[in-house]
Amino acid sequence: MPLLLNREKQDLDVILWDKETPCDREWLLKNAPGASALIVLVTDKVDAELLDAAGSKLRVVSTMSVGYEHIDAKEVAKRNLKLGYTPDVLTDAVADISIMLALMAGRNARETMTIVNDGRWPEYNWSPFLFCGRQLSASRSSTTRTAGFIGFGRIAQATLARLVPFGFTHCLYTSNPSSKPKPTRDSQLASTLRLQSIKRVDLATLAEESDVVFVLAPGGDETRNLVDVEFLRKMKKRAVLVNTSRGTLVDSDALATALREGWIWGAGLDVVAGEPKIAADHPLVKEPK
Amino acid sequence: MPLLLNREKQDLDVILWDKETPCDREWLLKNAPGASALIVLVTDKVDAELLDAAGSKLRVVSTMSVGYEHIDAKEVAKRNLKLGYTPDVLTDAVADISIMLALMAGRNARETMTIVNDGRWPEYNWSPFLFCGRQLSASRSSTTRTAGFIGFGRIAQATLARLVPFGFTHCLYTSNPSSKPKPTRDSQLASTLRLQSIKRVDLATLAEESDVVFVLAPGGDETRNLVDVEFLRKMKKRAVLVNTSRGTLVDSDALATALREGWIWGAGLDVVAGEPKIAADHPLVKEPK
Repeated sequence: MPLLLNREKQDLDVILWDKETPCDREWLLKNAPGASALIVLVTDKVDAELLDAAGSKLRVVSTMSVGYEHIDAKEVAKRNLKLGYTPDVLTDAVADISIMLALMAGRNARETMTIVNDGRWPEYNWSPFLFCGRQLSASRSSTTRTAGFIGFGRIAQATLARLVPFGFTHCLYTSNPSSKPKPTRDSQLASTLRLQSIKRVDLATLAEESDVVFVLAPGGDETRNLVDVEFLRKMKKRAVLVNTSRGTLVDSDALATALREGWIWGAGLDVVAGEPKIAADHPLVKEPK
Repeated sequence: MPLLLNREKQDLDVILWDKETPCDREWLLKNAPGASALIVLVTDKVDAELLDAAGSKLRVVSTMSVGYEHIDAKEVAKRNLKLGYTPDVLTDAVADISIMLALMAGRNARETMTIVNDGRWPEYNWSPFLFCGRQLSASRSSTTRTAGFIGFGRIAQATLARLVPFGFTHCLYTSNPSSKPKPTRDSQLASTLRLQSIKRVDLATLAEESDVVFVLAPGGDETRNLVDVEFLRKMKKRAVLVNTSRGTLVDSDALATALREGWIWGAGLDVVAGEPKIAADHPLVKEPK
């Protein structure tokens, strides 16, 4: 990747960046001219400069990702190009990882695995509550569970469905402010999943009332640092945060402070702002939770 | 723990081992005489010697655990004592951990977390299949999933319920050979959970046909090393093994070989035979999978 397809008559001419490193920008600009299609990854920025370089034969831009914040959609539209993306391919995969990270963050998986890996398990005597953390499932003494979703698309809904047999009873979500409320869809979905309620709320209510917050909104400038000091301060002390969308939605420094000072119980992160440049001394890598 | 209760008239006299280390055997034998109840943990062996030491006032032995392989039940019955245990307290907790470990084993969680912890993430460039592993959920290209349970009690059934929205379609299980088959219960449960089938099978069939094998049977001599070289050799290459019951059911050396040589995809272990004496050079700690 990227693939640059030049279609002359009926033949397809494929120009492929075949190295394992992200595609070199200069190579891309140099090879784009005459392409009828650009097939890119999240690491390739598609902007006016690249589209101009490709020229008038370009018909399609497609990205192998759910998100397309690396593509300037306005510039694509202005040129009457088709924009392709891969919305449903990873739905189940990301929903799986979201559940995994919610469980791991609650149960201190990172802390306990480090103890075992370092050979320090023998220092611990078994006792009934050793290494225990927060239970994801509802229990007899705590019979309700509220899942909060920042962004409520396909992946969020697939994640919610997986939470039902864990005893989740309520769902809160936030959406892009410009999108219309869907109360009928919400109540139908609640009934299908046998949840007591699914409600669209503001960010503050979501932070205050959720037992687990899943960040599953698109990246880009509009959602940058949605999870910041203010949001984390409002969360329940025993709640966990899971981010399986884009690292840019969460303020890493604020989250590191929240974990260190116990504002929240833990966090499960599949993405971090600035990845893969995340060294061992990154503030989040240093937090066992 | 243990608590030794001496009931004289209406008062309760409580003798408590209040250290964090497992209860000292000599202390237990010395303090047992005259107790009307023994409340113990899995680390306390309850045998003829201890019961004799307690003497004729003893009425009840109770353990704070689901399993009671550390208690000689025959000796307890012979003396007409009541035996207490805590069967349902941890059902949801263990089911949660079982799902977590199935997800982690499939997705190489241990390997990737080690890379991040060691500060080696910057060495990896993002690519679409980087760090990918086996997806727990069914997918369009692979539409069925079979869960196998060694032991099919409350925890196994709670785990199975959680797997349904992950697209699991079939369930196989093995039971204690002396227990009666329950085909009606099985078909009712399959219908409630909307599974295509739930079937009791022999150990070889379970190994051969399961995508995930959950070990959830009691410990003790009868189930020792049920998961051995022969079992692991029969498993699918892309299957994972999860043990959240007792370490004694799995032959650790055989499992380490299976992981190293790729007989199976990975393993998620909440328990290991001999724990907590598991050092960094234990064969299983050395296996990234």
